[in-house]
Amino acid sequence: MNALEFFQRSAGTWRSQRTTHHLAFRRAEKGGSEIIVNPLDANDPKVIEICQMHEIEPTTAIGGAYVKWDGTMAWDKEDDENHSGETVFALVPDDETGRKGKLLRERGYAEIMPVIGRYEIDNEEALVLITEYPSMSSYERFWFPTPNVRMRASTVKRFGGFSTATFCTEELINAEDVAEVNVDNQPSANQSPKQPAIASVFGW
Amino acid sequence: MNALEFFQRSAGTWRSQRTTHHLAFRRAEKGGSEIIVNPLDANDPKVIEICQMHEIEPTTAIGGAYVKWDGTMAWDKEDDENHSGETVFALVPDDETGRKGKLLRERGYAEIMPVIGRYEIDNEEALVLITEYPSMSSYERFWFPTPNVRMRASTVKRFGGFSTATFCTEELINAEDVAEVNVDNQPSANQSPKQPAIASVFGW
Repeated sequence: MNALEFFQRSAGTWRSQRTTHHLAFRRAEKGGSEIIVNPLDANDPKVIEICQMHEIEPTTAIGGAYVKWDGTMAWDKEDDENHSGETVFALVPDDETGRKGKLLRERGYAEIMPVIGRYEIDNEEALVLITEYPSMSSYERFWFPTPNVRMRASTVKRFGGFSTATFCTEELINAEDVAEVNVDNQPSANQSPKQPAIASVFGW
Repeated sequence: MNALEFFQRSAGTWRSQRTTHHLAFRRAEKGGSEIIVNPLDANDPKVIEICQMHEIEPTTAIGGAYVKWDGTMAWDKEDDENHSGETVFALVPDDETGRKGKLLRERGYAEIMPVIGRYEIDNEEALVLITEYPSMSSYERFWFPTPNVRMRASTVKRFGGFSTATFCTEELINAEDVAEVNVDNQPSANQSPKQPAIASVFGW
């Protein structure tokens, strides 16, 4: 299985239950969201555009995905913040297996987001996304215990120490849903720039 | 790394944050516990005793562990139930690598518990425990994002469907702690027989 096949298995609308364990505060934060995943072919205009932004030859990409999410986090209830957002990315493998390589993000999504991460399908057929920041790193692992349940575990380490672990259990509620791709290169008004760096590379 | 080495890395006292995601109820349940892990050598009397209970030659075991836990779950606050317990198990590998094999439990721990499970160190150096029940199966995976943080993700499938996912983030608070092994073959008074089958093979 390559990374594009993994996202093809992720196609559809998912109901996500999320919990973040904060070691320093010894507390858990829970949330939920609805996530729509559209895998994109290598010849999709959005995939080609992202490659061009990064000055990478578009024919080296195997495809990508458009992801849209709408959710809430318990700690944000006071300020009524809405964790909605959308993103598009492209997969550029290191070799013909497609199992590991670069994950390119659109530019301008949020200032704190790096635009290039690493992806890998590990030996257990889970998808791992690794993103290095100047003062922290994010490790996110996705796997399917059953075809209609996807799980995610991600850890964020800051300055060499461990800070948070986030877990999601995601149930497929409609495999046929397709969201219309409608992404510009600026953060949308209701998108929180702080959340993606903390909970997930993607924000969802 | 074999399974005994994994438990040796787990030695000490851990503060555990736990969350269980219930798909059917669309809700999360959280809890916490303190866990003490003592790895046991192959020649430990308790390891030998468990092998003999299962009529397995004790010299085929590579060791085991004694685990003691003391915790709370949010849903139990009303009846003031105390999720404390202790268990001892032995590891009997399939081959000389020690990376997969049988996990033997003491008998009499709780009626609903099977006494033999399977363990495996997967290709990502995580420990996987698989336990098959008549109407459900449990899959539990442990890994270390850093030496002093251990994470666990477990899933329980019932009648072929998916029911719950449990996640734990565990921080090592004292690597030198050693608990005295004091286990008889009967459930202790404050040990809940229903919890181990739901949240974890071990109950902790």
